[in-house]
Amino acid sequence: MSRLRVGVVGVGYWGPNLVRNFQRHTDCEVTVVGDRELDRASQIAKEYRVPTVAITASEVSESDDVDLVVIATPSFTHYDMACEAIAAGKHVLVMKPLTTSTETAEDLCDRAQKQGVLLAVDHTFLFTGAVRKLRQLIVDGAIGDIYYFDSVRINLGLIQTDVNVLWDLAPHDISIMDYLIRRDPIDVLAVGAAHGGSPTENIAYLTVRYDNELLGHVHVNWLAPAKIRRTIVGGSKRMLVYDDVEPSEKVRVYDKGFSTEGPVSENGYRTLISYRSGDMHAPKLDSREALGVEVENVVNAIRGREDLIVDGTAGLRVVRILEAAQRSLDQGGHPVKLDQGNLAVRS
Amino acid sequence: MSRLRVGVVGVGYWGPNLVRNFQRHTDCEVTVVGDRELDRASQIAKEYRVPTVAITASEVSESDDVDLVVIATPSFTHYDMACEAIAAGKHVLVMKPLTTSTETAEDLCDRAQKQGVLLAVDHTFLFTGAVRKLRQLIVDGAIGDIYYFDSVRINLGLIQTDVNVLWDLAPHDISIMDYLIRRDPIDVLAVGAAHGGSPTENIAYLTVRYDNELLGHVHVNWLAPAKIRRTIVGGSKRMLVYDDVEPSEKVRVYDKGFSTEGPVSENGYRTLISYRSGDMHAPKLDSREALGVEVENVVNAIRGREDLIVDGTAGLRVVRILEAAQRSLDQGGHPVKLDQGNLAVRS
Amino acid sequence: MSRLRVGVVGVGYWGPNLVRNFQRHTDCEVTVVGDRELDRASQIAKEYRVPTVAITASEVSESDDVDLVVIATPSFTHYDMACEAIAAGKHVLVMKPLTTSTETAEDLCDRAQKQGVLLAVDHTFLFTGAVRKLRQLIVDGAIGDIYYFDSVRINLGLIQTDVNVLWDLAPHDISIMDYLIRRDPIDVLAVGAAHGGSPTENIAYLTVRYDNELLGHVHVNWLAPAKIRRTIVGGSKRMLVYDDVEPSEKVRVYDKGFSTEGPVSENGYRTLISYRSGDMHAPKLDSREALGVEVENVVNAIRGREDLIVDGTAGLRVVRILEAAQRSLDQGGHPVKLDQGNLAVRS
Amino acid sequence: MSRLRVGVVGVGYWGPNLVRNFQRHTDCEVTVVGDRELDRASQIAKEYRVPTVAITASEVSESDDVDLVVIATPSFTHYDMACEAIAAGKHVLVMKPLTTSTETAEDLCDRAQKQGVLLAVDHTFLFTGAVRKLRQLIVDGAIGDIYYFDSVRINLGLIQTDVNVLWDLAPHDISIMDYLIRRDPIDVLAVGAAHGGSPTENIAYLTVRYDNELLGHVHVNWLAPAKIRRTIVGGSKRMLVYDDVEPSEKVRVYDKGFSTEGPVSENGYRTLISYRSGDMHAPKLDSREALGVEVENVVNAIRGREDLIVDGTAGLRVVRILEAAQRSLDQGGHPVKLDQGNLAVRS
Repeated sequence: MSRLRVGVVGVGYWGPNLVRNFQRHTDCEVTVVGDRELDRASQIAKEYRVPTVAITASEVSESDDVDLVVIATPSFTHYDMACEAIAAGKHVLVMKPLTTSTETAEDLCDRAQKQGVLLAVDHTFLFTGAVRKLRQLIVDGAIGDIYYFDSVRINLGLIQTDVNVLWDLAPHDISIMDYLIRRDPIDVLAVGAAHGGSPTENIAYLTVRYDNELLGHVHVNWLAPAKIRRTIVGGSKRMLVYDDVEPSEKVRVYDKGFSTEGPVSENGYRTLISYRSGDMHAPKLDSREALGVEVENVVNAIRGREDLIVDGTAGLRVVRILEAAQRSLDQGGHPVKLDQGNLAVRS
Repeated sequence: MSRLRVGVVGVGYWGPNLVRNFQRHTDCEVTVVGDRELDRASQIAKEYRVPTVAITASEVSESDDVDLVVIATPSFTHYDMACEAIAAGKHVLVMKPLTTSTETAEDLCDRAQKQGVLLAVDHTFLFTGAVRKLRQLIVDGAIGDIYYFDSVRINLGLIQTDVNVLWDLAPHDISIMDYLIRRDPIDVLAVGAAHGGSPTENIAYLTVRYDNELLGHVHVNWLAPAKIRRTIVGGSKRMLVYDDVEPSEKVRVYDKGFSTEGPVSENGYRTLISYRSGDMHAPKLDSREALGVEVENVVNAIRGREDLIVDGTAGLRVVRILEAAQRSLDQGGHPVKLDQGNLAVRS
Repeated sequence: MSRLRVGVVGVGYWGPNLVRNFQRHTDCEVTVVGDRELDRASQIAKEYRVPTVAITASEVSESDDVDLVVIATPSFTHYDMACEAIAAGKHVLVMKPLTTSTETAEDLCDRAQKQGVLLAVDHTFLFTGAVRKLRQLIVDGAIGDIYYFDSVRINLGLIQTDVNVLWDLAPHDISIMDYLIRRDPIDVLAVGAAHGGSPTENIAYLTVRYDNELLGHVHVNWLAPAKIRRTIVGGSKRMLVYDDVEPSEKVRVYDKGFSTEGPVSENGYRTLISYRSGDMHAPKLDSREALGVEVENVVNAIRGREDLIVDGTAGLRVVRILEAAQRSLDQGGHPVKLDQGNLAVRS
Repeated sequence: MSRLRVGVVGVGYWGPNLVRNFQRHTDCEVTVVGDRELDRASQIAKEYRVPTVAITASEVSESDDVDLVVIATPSFTHYDMACEAIAAGKHVLVMKPLTTSTETAEDLCDRAQKQGVLLAVDHTFLFTGAVRKLRQLIVDGAIGDIYYFDSVRINLGLIQTDVNVLWDLAPHDISIMDYLIRRDPIDVLAVGAAHGGSPTENIAYLTVRYDNELLGHVHVNWLAPAKIRRTIVGGSKRMLVYDDVEPSEKVRVYDKGFSTEGPVSENGYRTLISYRSGDMHAPKLDSREALGVEVENVVNAIRGREDLIVDGTAGLRVVRILEAAQRSLDQGGHPVKLDQGNLAVRS
């Protein structure tokens, strides 16, 4: 069987990492790179020995030398480019967020299904050793019922002008949250602000509510003095901290919690609550580059060897929350209910 | 002049610290300690050589040997006890939060003013070397315009049954925020949840909005695996981090930020934004015990030597935000406007 | 049975902690405190309700109201005072270091044995939850063979004029090392320096060699910009880090190491070495105050209920290493052999 | 002027970084890479578009297309290869340590001088923004007199079989120490141990003594559970901490210290010592890749535009300390005097 031929559209900041990882995969070859800045495309093509250079996404989609189109352009271009690639019968891998609206995300899923091509979304963090370990701990029942998911992703980052901080950074946290919780949220609340002449919101707080008191919260900020990337998951049995800034021991499992024993007294200051503060455990994590693991999964899915871990529906679920958050933000923070559509979670 | 005579009501968890600090002050003597658990009162009286023991707050308020009544009981009792002490012509120092409603807090302020006694509130953190340094940096203009205030106060704390985590922990952050920002907020949003049979919310997120895009946010949580107490203040000139868990260098001043130069281009990916990432500076802080500094201020204010730093109005301003937050929480997170009453901020 | 009557000599910096802990013990009462500064003694006596005050150690030793004499004075006075107390038939607890020479330390052990009184030494760190956990891990075989013990204890500390930093700080590390390793060292090397007009060495490095390549090393420093108190124990199975500055998770057990497999090749760059980098585990530690645990052991030993954990021999073993280190330091760093006397280690 | 032509010998672990940095320099081109494993050489040549591949160092040295020979092979091969390159009239850049003996290092310096070629040594850390900032602070007098230099470089590293940990890791610390202190040491002491069948010492402690009580100390360890790379410099005015593991604020300047005032009393416990504990300052550091800065300096020196920052003499000074340390280690830790030869320090 011949190798999978990959065309990459957009080789600005993130695209070259995809070129490198696909080029490194033994069952792939990157055949085309495209960028509206031809010099940039040529430079990357030279560095990674890619034979063909293109300017437009259409050139890549319509190339006979391409089986998979990777779209690494600004998010407002994703829908049109992905439509074109799907129409050309190509598999597609789209950077996060999948599109800029639920409607277009749903439409892409439909089109891919009808065409019989795969639609994958680059939620890279789901392929880190850390997040996969979190997922495994939850699946294994080590955490018990999930009480809350709290994620902070802040630093002095680049102010974007085409998207706000919510659409730029929160897809990471929302995709992790959705991957770990695997439930449909009830509603979303969001507030944010644009400071110092920033054209878009540079700080935002996002709350996602699920039934049974499960609470998700995300703080994203481009204008923070220190880099913090920390996710806390509280559960009935154990609590998790995933600190991505730590050089080692990124995931810590705390055997801490409380349980209520007996009825709550009516007038006492404190009820019969028993606290548990036990050991902490930092499991060894798979240290492979997340993007390499993702590329492996995408290639295997195209080859029919395994399921896509982040398919179009997963991408759509994230867009749906982002869209609701944006609506809440625009409406001054009012809760926005989520349509309980039939977005089956892959179990 | 004879020494100021202090009566302390409530010597459970926090009260003994007040007894100790007033007893240590050269111009004070603690003459009475009261607690509904007499054994507890007797034990503390013995340990700190306090001559008289009482069971009820009334006994303390009506004692002829008391000039200042310190109220360190659960918050739902503050209003009645403080009314009684004020009526008896005593100065009053009330633990945070001042009361459990704006109405009662306002009433207390009025009563104290009419009686000509001082009403102080124990917002202890305002007397730490760290918060005083933050205040000084802001007053000195080192921060520029304040963009946001973000505070996280979480750990595996004791579940309270008479108050939720908002009323228990957030008074610390709200009092710091109000002390640093000194402006009237527009509205408040809050969400929270009660987990695992907890009788009250054990996690809450609170957003406070001011005009001109200034955003305040507080995350309080009794059910977190690690202790985090960190406040970030973003400004147009510099950014501050106050990490109370750090053994040293609790306050860090970052010479970081960005400025926009020239107009934002219509279709460019990035506008003319210039980033600044400079030195970090950790100023030496006054290391005196905060409660000792507070006691000093209260005594000096009673003696007419200086103004109260945290008076009834400061306490009321915090209660007003807490009440609005509680209303928002009860209403499912909808924004609750704050009455723009005449709560003059002490400049 | 009447309560154990304790007399404490020296209530400067450390002595009051002993007064407090003995006073708190239900089977003890502190009957006398002595200090050559009478005001200081009176102040402490008042604070802890001790009935009698003394100026000289002799008064305490000869008091009929004292069963146990606690000696918390500068180390050069320990020997004389302890001799006197032993001669008076009193049990003795001496602060670290036991004495300032091996000869006097041995003599004290002999005298105590002949008099039939207990001689205990205050190596407080051995009673921390952290060090007891380290000891347990080693005894349980979790560490395997110990390869090295490396301890750093530095900060901006008070310059002492009667002892150098070696005799002031290193007793902590040496006592921990001896407690964990339980073997007789072969020799000791030490270097140090006195800076900026300091009357004694303010920095010192100490190496202790045992047979079978086991290496101990201690860095003590009064003139360091940050507080570091960290001990690393390397072993054939696992490695331990004890970081006393950490607010939680002070002890971390790393499942890391290497093993050599097959013969080492003569000319290859790398032999068959297999590395192991696994989980990290932070066991929950007993959080009781170390001094309270120590007091409990001393009282139980006097009552005949258990053995002393730190007896005169343990104190002597530490002094023997300190004396050799001082000799090495005085001789410019040359190794000083340790007399392999019959200092049986308590197993 | 045509570009500087560079040949790199040895492209195992470190060599490719040199290829990359020279290739990236606008005034250079890498014309040959050589490795005794031809496949490895071919792979790197392909990746970095280097036209010619060689197997032996001689091929590289004798190539007409090479102006500068970069030697990135194991240290025992450096001397022979460098001799050959110098004899062929090529400039040479040798990885650390320059050679394995003072004698050969001196000989290389002589040969290079006679041939009129440049001999540079890759002490990469001297080109980091951190170490250059440390140097600048010392030159500017901000530190005052240097009291001590303490460096710890430990982690679970690869056991080497051709060199011990002293020759593998300590060159980094010794080169930094020599660069900051710029004085000739008096003597060197070292101890070490080989554990668990390791063919060479995997842990070593090295003490370097200068006149006037200035003390240097280095702890290197391949068998540590956590990565520590921290250098502390104590001075009469300020103290420095360089923590290379910190993601930001790697260099911290502490305004801490003490000064003695008035004469030391003969019998007092404490003399008139005044302690100073002030602000901490973390200066912004140049974040360019150190190797890029080094390459820039080497190229500029060859072009006659500036002096070499790390010339053969600097490399020799490090080897001289390593050799003395090895001798001390072999002799059981006895101090080894350093020959006070005429190794002029470049000011």
